[in-house]
Amino acid sequence: MTLILGIDPGSRQTGFGLIDAVGVKTSYVSSGIIRMSKGELPARLKVIFQSISELIEQHQPQVMAIEDIFFARDPRAALRLGQARGAAIVAGVDADLPVSEYSARTVKKAVVGSGSASKEQVQHMVMRLLALPAAPKEDAADALAVAICHAHSLTMHPTLIKSERYSRGRFK
Amino acid sequence: MTLILGIDPGSRQTGFGLIDAVGVKTSYVSSGIIRMSKGELPARLKVIFQSISELIEQHQPQVMAIEDIFFARDPRAALRLGQARGAAIVAGVDADLPVSEYSARTVKKAVVGSGSASKEQVQHMVMRLLALPAAPKEDAADALAVAICHAHSLTMHPTLIKSERYSRGRFK
Repeated sequence: MTLILGIDPGSRQTGFGLIDAVGVKTSYVSSGIIRMSKGELPARLKVIFQSISELIEQHQPQVMAIEDIFFARDPRAALRLGQARGAAIVAGVDADLPVSEYSARTVKKAVVGSGSASKEQVQHMVMRLLALPAAPKEDAADALAVAICHAHSLTMHPTLIKSERYSRGRFK
Repeated sequence: MTLILGIDPGSRQTGFGLIDAVGVKTSYVSSGIIRMSKGELPARLKVIFQSISELIEQHQPQVMAIEDIFFARDPRAALRLGQARGAAIVAGVDADLPVSEYSARTVKKAVVGSGSASKEQVQHMVMRLLALPAAPKEDAADALAVAICHAHSLTMHPTLIKSERYSRGRFK
């Protein structure tokens, strides 16, 4: 059994999702959204770092899986997103967790079966795969989806994981 | 006396500089460069976070001053830089340090007297202001410069700091 912490980082809010994985069988543990105040950047990054550190402390996951963002729009937004993502990753490595990165395309492919699936399709499949009574909110669903994606990669043959990683590079 | 930790974040290497400030009088304590390996991103962010955490542990500065980057080029580079900057800021806030941000233009204005000063001018003035026997390397010089900038802002009248902050926004 592997407890996986999925993270969907954002500059305004960060989704998290915890699942238990036994082979390809996954079960829901917890999920939610870390909301940042509108204050100064350092205080907002502290919220991300401390909230994720607390989640790790509380649930003791074995691994963090985080969405790798391709962000083609303006550099200011990319910088903001990068800072949030950096704070989240540091919470993982500071707790000595291995951190795996998956592109949005790889996550969608693992969860829905298509790299170009819509947000709604991801939410729907996350609900189905984890037998939830309702679809989780978007950021929490994305965080659960990246955790599910990691669970699938654990069951794959090493060479298949490798080729999947290679395809990530190509699609970015 | 205030011990200030200046940080110049970068995706390949991060400069740091420690100075003591008594009013506008500043004296050199330490400086250097944190180099990241070419490995995976989480491991590289861990190096930034841990190195800065160790510097804080060792020297016990009262404040962190960090360069605020305006980055007009490609979003991929901005994302990488944002991640490094996020890891550095989190090291500060995790140690309960206040973190002040200054644009490159404000730093140059404080150190050289002109917001459009060259890298060489910054290195030269950092050497002069801190009475160093030689100019520090570029990233270390920039980190010392942002620390000097913070020392100057401490001596300013609150309304002046405010207007300086406002001008930061305009110049970005």
